Amino acid sequence: MGGGPDKETLVVIWANELKHLTDDIQRRFPYIDVIFHQLGKPQGGKQMGGIPYAFDAIPEELWRKATLLVTLGSLPPKPDLVPNLKYIHLLSAGIDHFANHPMFTDTDIPISTSSGIHGPPITEWILLTTLALHKNYDIMYENQKQHKWESGRIGLRQAWDWEGKTVGIMGYGSIGRQVARVYSAMGSRIHAYTASPRSTPESRHHTGYQLPNVGDPDGTIPDAWYSGTDKPSLHTFLASGLDMLVISVPLTSATRGLISDAEIDVLYHDSLEKSKQATSPDSQASDDNVRLPDNEGCTLVNISRGPIVDTSALLRALHPNHTPDSGRKLFGACLDVTDPEPLPENHELWDCPKVIITPHISALGREYVDRGFGVLIENLGRRERGEKMVNIVQRKRGY
Amino acid sequence: MGGGPDKETLVVIWANELKHLTDDIQRRFPYIDVIFHQLGKPQGGKQMGGIPYAFDAIPEELWRKATLLVTLGSLPPKPDLVPNLKYIHLLSAGIDHFANHPMFTDTDIPISTSSGIHGPPITEWILLTTLALHKNYDIMYENQKQHKWESGRIGLRQAWDWEGKTVGIMGYGSIGRQVARVYSAMGSRIHAYTASPRSTPESRHHTGYQLPNVGDPDGTIPDAWYSGTDKPSLHTFLASGLDMLVISVPLTSATRGLISDAEIDVLYHDSLEKSKQATSPDSQASDDNVRLPDNEGCTLVNISRGPIVDTSALLRALHPNHTPDSGRKLFGACLDVTDPEPLPENHELWDCPKVIITPHISALGREYVDRGFGVLIENLGRRERGEKMVNIVQRKRGY
Repeated sequence: MGGGPDKETLVVIWANELKHLTDDIQRRFPYIDVIFHQLGKPQGGKQMGGIPYAFDAIPEELWRKATLLVTLGSLPPKPDLVPNLKYIHLLSAGIDHFANHPMFTDTDIPISTSSGIHGPPITEWILLTTLALHKNYDIMYENQKQHKWESGRIGLRQAWDWEGKTVGIMGYGSIGRQVARVYSAMGSRIHAYTASPRSTPESRHHTGYQLPNVGDPDGTIPDAWYSGTDKPSLHTFLASGLDMLVISVPLTSATRGLISDAEIDVLYHDSLEKSKQATSPDSQASDDNVRLPDNEGCTLVNISRGPIVDTSALLRALHPNHTPDSGRKLFGACLDVTDPEPLPENHELWDCPKVIITPHISALGREYVDRGFGVLIENLGRRERGEKMVNIVQRKRGY
Repeated sequence: MGGGPDKETLVVIWANELKHLTDDIQRRFPYIDVIFHQLGKPQGGKQMGGIPYAFDAIPEELWRKATLLVTLGSLPPKPDLVPNLKYIHLLSAGIDHFANHPMFTDTDIPISTSSGIHGPPITEWILLTTLALHKNYDIMYENQKQHKWESGRIGLRQAWDWEGKTVGIMGYGSIGRQVARVYSAMGSRIHAYTASPRSTPESRHHTGYQLPNVGDPDGTIPDAWYSGTDKPSLHTFLASGLDMLVISVPLTSATRGLISDAEIDVLYHDSLEKSKQATSPDSQASDDNVRLPDNEGCTLVNISRGPIVDTSALLRALHPNHTPDSGRKLFGACLDVTDPEPLPENHELWDCPKVIITPHISALGREYVDRGFGVLIENLGRRERGEKMVNIVQRKRGY
């Protein structure tokens, strides 16, 4: 590279103009020509949180020019179209929506994700929805609409807080680490579950892109670590006294359907056990009680991908009509992702008691694109300096 | 006390039986006879979060026996009735509802409050309501009721998170410290405001009862400290770039009406300034813009006592009909307390855009009474050992 880096062409595909970001890249990397392509409206097709990622008739000439590409999910339909492409940066954290795409299966072009930027908004979504569920925000909201100053159903006996509770986090990446940071500040115990064991301090460090001032870079927050890829290991974690289970593992063939009837039963029996052991004689639990007392049980939170949880199992656990003799098996569920997705209008999950559903928006916010470009800028700098880039997808592993 | 502590009689006044707590005290302090008196239903009278604290015809004989008293607010109407009373423990944090009560003005009987136990639930209430406001939870909720998978109004452009934002906390006691702990974990900067300066590390320590594992006992969390009791000092704090102002000072003659038109104007002009300086050219602000762009401005949070904020000023700042030419002055407000309280059904605050109102319940939850008794147990132990009790009200100061 005697005469400086080669000329590059970065194609940026997004739904709205991003002038401050494309200008910033142009200024930082003068040898990169930035071409912005604005996506059209989603045409009944693929989208993520309202942002289209369909292929949207991107001109073949643009594909031919591209040496670098940044996109949420608009990939060239076949590798032939991008003879010059050397690097792809995705503005999403997951790559499961591309797992069968020829750019993924038939090329070795380095692909980086925006993993690492989702911690703050997703953690806040978890706070919002679980607190809404546990503190009966629906009652507060309906009362305000009716101008009703009434505290009978939202007061001393119904609400509870997370001080002294236990939060289980399945998948201790950048999202799980920020959840741990905040719930630990709220006084909760943190149980982390990972595929590979994290028995040394070094093995607990976060790898990949990291936003400053958030998360748990050194992995010092969890009160207990669990690991494994088999059912018994998973069940040991699920039986560790969890008041909430946060699913933040990627969707792969190994995690599809990971939480199903057996896993929910482990959570249920563990909650029953806990409620029997509660020392307070005011508690409604007793030895011969096989139902969860009101306001008890684990809350399942899925902010990753819908198919990790078996929807039928969830319905059986929560829908009162599904288990007439055994009652509810979980406290409730907060779901930003569902299976199927989008959730059809007539799906019975919508009206399940103690279920909050939102349309795959937990990561979104005004900071999203700037932070996603932050990862790109980090990697363009590393590339220029000949360093290893962050967040590069390992195709074999699948994320 | 040669033969051990004197016999005592603790009268416990509460709305529900508390057998596990009264048994616990009996076991820990065998020389104390515990007499439980159950309050009747609130009779259109005084209550706090649905818990009555009226005098409720408590038998004079009971008052005469009492040497110790624990209550939310049922005090003997005059000191003559309690000739043997030596100590009162209140299950509330504030004492403003008693400021003119003869037990307060005409006796020197030590009174302790349950200050110190409210941090976790109130912080969670602040998280719930401010996140509901900023992330448009009302839209999510109404969409779910209608089975609508729709992200257009809750996605990239509307929501934002607290990483990199600034939270101002007025009154850095046990509640303010827990707010600081959690928002700091979320990546926010913390600005603390106190009456007296906290210029040395020691002066920043928390005094009073402290729940374990929460709060900021050493006062190391704030990024900036402000102090004073005059308007200019307060305005300097309010002009420090706050995205949220949390009011957690007690109600006293000095804090009544503390936040009024002038203070809201300081917050407003500071928000305008901040929005002009925002480097993003995508921002809607410009030099000649005198209105707050959408989704900007400071959010006012009151979890203390209603009269600290001038309700008319708040209405002028938020109600669109009140300021036709100047627009909104705050982003919104989350109010667990109002003035007047209860808020009358026809009060226009109920329908103010971007205002969330709840009926003085932010501190309440299943843990409340146990934690309030935790303070009592701490003090009974200190009393027995001849040590100084915690949370004793300083009558002159008023809290």
